[in-house]
Amino acid sequence: MTSTPLHPLRAEEIPAWDLEADVVIAGNGIAGVSASIEAARAGADVLVLERTGGWGGAASLSGGILYLGGGTPLQKALGFEDTPENMKTFMAAALGPGTDDAKLTEYCEGSVDHYNWLVENGVVFKESFWGEPGWEIPGDDGLMYSGGENAAPFNEIATPAPRGHVPQMSNKRTGEQGGGYMIMKPLAETAEKLGVKAEYDVRVQRLIVDDSGRVVGIAAKRYGKDLHVRARRGVVLATGSFAYNKEMIEAYAPNLIGRPGAAIEEHDGRAIRMAQALGADLAHMDATEVAFFGDPQLMARGILVNARGQRYVPEDTYPGRIGQLTLLKNDNQAFLVIDEAAYEEGSAARSSTPFFRFQPKWVAESVEELESEMGLPAGTLQATVEVYNRHAENGEDPVLGKKSEWVKPIGTPIAALDLRNFTAGFTLGGLRTTVDSEVLHVSGQPIPGLFAAGRCTSGVCAGGYASGTSLGDGSFFGRRAGISAAKG
Amino acid sequence: MTSTPLHPLRAEEIPAWDLEADVVIAGNGIAGVSASIEAARAGADVLVLERTGGWGGAASLSGGILYLGGGTPLQKALGFEDTPENMKTFMAAALGPGTDDAKLTEYCEGSVDHYNWLVENGVVFKESFWGEPGWEIPGDDGLMYSGGENAAPFNEIATPAPRGHVPQMSNKRTGEQGGGYMIMKPLAETAEKLGVKAEYDVRVQRLIVDDSGRVVGIAAKRYGKDLHVRARRGVVLATGSFAYNKEMIEAYAPNLIGRPGAAIEEHDGRAIRMAQALGADLAHMDATEVAFFGDPQLMARGILVNARGQRYVPEDTYPGRIGQLTLLKNDNQAFLVIDEAAYEEGSAARSSTPFFRFQPKWVAESVEELESEMGLPAGTLQATVEVYNRHAENGEDPVLGKKSEWVKPIGTPIAALDLRNFTAGFTLGGLRTTVDSEVLHVSGQPIPGLFAAGRCTSGVCAGGYASGTSLGDGSFFGRRAGISAAKG
Repeated sequence: MTSTPLHPLRAEEIPAWDLEADVVIAGNGIAGVSASIEAARAGADVLVLERTGGWGGAASLSGGILYLGGGTPLQKALGFEDTPENMKTFMAAALGPGTDDAKLTEYCEGSVDHYNWLVENGVVFKESFWGEPGWEIPGDDGLMYSGGENAAPFNEIATPAPRGHVPQMSNKRTGEQGGGYMIMKPLAETAEKLGVKAEYDVRVQRLIVDDSGRVVGIAAKRYGKDLHVRARRGVVLATGSFAYNKEMIEAYAPNLIGRPGAAIEEHDGRAIRMAQALGADLAHMDATEVAFFGDPQLMARGILVNARGQRYVPEDTYPGRIGQLTLLKNDNQAFLVIDEAAYEEGSAARSSTPFFRFQPKWVAESVEELESEMGLPAGTLQATVEVYNRHAENGEDPVLGKKSEWVKPIGTPIAALDLRNFTAGFTLGGLRTTVDSEVLHVSGQPIPGLFAAGRCTSGVCAGGYASGTSLGDGSFFGRRAGISAAKG
Repeated sequence: MTSTPLHPLRAEEIPAWDLEADVVIAGNGIAGVSASIEAARAGADVLVLERTGGWGGAASLSGGILYLGGGTPLQKALGFEDTPENMKTFMAAALGPGTDDAKLTEYCEGSVDHYNWLVENGVVFKESFWGEPGWEIPGDDGLMYSGGENAAPFNEIATPAPRGHVPQMSNKRTGEQGGGYMIMKPLAETAEKLGVKAEYDVRVQRLIVDDSGRVVGIAAKRYGKDLHVRARRGVVLATGSFAYNKEMIEAYAPNLIGRPGAAIEEHDGRAIRMAQALGADLAHMDATEVAFFGDPQLMARGILVNARGQRYVPEDTYPGRIGQLTLLKNDNQAFLVIDEAAYEEGSAARSSTPFFRFQPKWVAESVEELESEMGLPAGTLQATVEVYNRHAENGEDPVLGKKSEWVKPIGTPIAALDLRNFTAGFTLGGLRTTVDSEVLHVSGQPIPGLFAAGRCTSGVCAGGYASGTSLGDGSFFGRRAGISAAKG
């Protein structure tokens, strides 16, 4: 093979192995730690290679939502009915188009078991429900809606059930000791107890294959020095997304060009590239999570309009859906139109994102005046508010299906928040894998010895998103990757 | 390497070469024939492998629009000013996000030369301009707007210039003797005169590499029999898109799931897969051309609304843009609302797509009645028409920028055509190539001996589309592929 740093190395070219284990895992985030636990339990000697100085990955800095359902003990304890079928119906509708049917089936059918596994490994969920619109839970409640299950159009497609499972936090500090940390800590401790070894400050570079094409190791660098690591049974890739690889964003997910990545800088797509160099297939590389810098408690109480003054989303839905519809379908242009009373009520409501409660940019005594100040074509916003108010008198929103509890005629004084270009995001696409986390070659066959999970793979999301699906499928299929790799 | 039909073969495994040439080209459509001409002119012995029984590919069945500009002799003769810079400004705005800047630069700067090359090789353009809204030209005129250059928002971004160059047809029969055929016939004859050999009914299967990783041939099948073809200097892949590969559509371009492919069934993505198996990089696999089954002469005279009764596109723009905005941003839901006078005027106007002039599904004496019959939420369509008419009185459309010549207040009787789910499309993504049509490995290095052009590559379109860019970049970068491969 031509010698460039990404091409696979052939085992016979390796002068000597620096490290060796049955299962070698690249990345010590949610997918990597889950793989390491299961591989160790299956009797394998496990070595994790991590680029940073410690375990955690993006997971540790995240809000810690895990998308679980189908009747978890927490859902039941809090009085919510759910089934694997109901969960799958929602996920197929909300996370497509193009969701992987086999993955959704396994994920939903195995969700209760996965919840129990998390609890057995030390993750604690408090039996309390947070029912307000929000990105995250402001306190330490254990369950929330995190994908628009209870909002239009999905509340008509499947029976709404909250599936955002959040670990109990003590002394919560977002990004330091938040929900993600409260998942990663017990899992990392479990792995350690099981004898999983980890090497830090190791950057994986390329895969090593034998003459039959089987993956038998990883070539890496530590402080600029080559490191050749032999995997006797299998290699697991779990190094996260490509959100911080500029070239890949431009070629695969250009809607995120110039959008600050809601991920960590280590998410450089390297594992995807390493496997592509072996002929690995990809899926849904354009799919993107989109964060939106609006406070859900305010948004639900107003109307969101695009640059033409038109509504385009039920404002009481999952804010990530608002983000996707804004960035991907409405040119990243959004204004929140809200009357004074609603603004005050929303501002007083409890929220995990009070820092997204921006001051109105425009305030007016009439819709006509507001429209003019905003520079919208004459009549557009007036028409939108008129139609909204006409139905709001009856507590209805036939245009977009906002739930009646949030529907009230918009009065005066009236204001608008400028939420244009207020989005960020990370990538959801990656390596195409089986339900057993085998990496598929473009031929449709698994690449022997190679497994992957987490955001370097395409998981349960194909186009849409729900909070908790990344930690969810990363841990779920991470476990599978560990089990498969240990089998060799 | 594991033995599955897509993995590259190693040259040492080939028992004997069945065929041999300096340059071996897979596919005899627009990209393949252009490559073959230039490779032969560069002194190479050229062999083309074609899956069907003759030359032509999708190009031959197409409308034959070539996207050319920057001041072509035809543009000048018809009084249109254009420059490479102006052309590039439009293309970057309309064909993104994520267009390949280097490709756009070369394509625009080389466009006049490319026009001359086509003419020198027998393609005839008649010096007459078609200025009406349309998918294609109903007669044998040579030039048209084919990308919305003269419509909002692009008419404010770059100076409008028509760039859809269409060969003169005699006795036009769409799909048999249309514009595409009038391009392919002289090019195929030129290739034949230059001594290019072609083998038909040959299905390419996998690439053959030597020990250094260089591509040195293609393994193919003819009537089920293996055929090993040696390429002494280079291999060119030019087998078209993946529009008819169901699995690839689901994983890479799921918006086209269930949409009839506006391509030919031979577009199975095989060349993309063969190169991926060698570690080739991809770009913009989600990008899709979207055809829309509406007659432009009718659409320009009415308003298009989505399922919420909202306008979303200037109706006088390129219909492919209407298609993209409908499918990708408005849930594939479109209605054309038009009054009786405009419907009659539009129906009487000359068009290449009279078969898209469907009967209205609903007819009413008032907008309120129409809205109710269509099942739209009360007030929505009324508000839209009211705002439109308010500005139309002054010949203006500040909401979407439709040109004043098409803006008239909508009167009664009024009707609506049901254009929901009236889209089809083909894929625009594919192998990542350099401006010299080298196929790039994920490492960023060219794969030695491997070149590609046409719709199995990502060309000048990243997300948007203009008619003529496929034949345009297929022929332009097809030539480059032939030149590069002949150099070896």
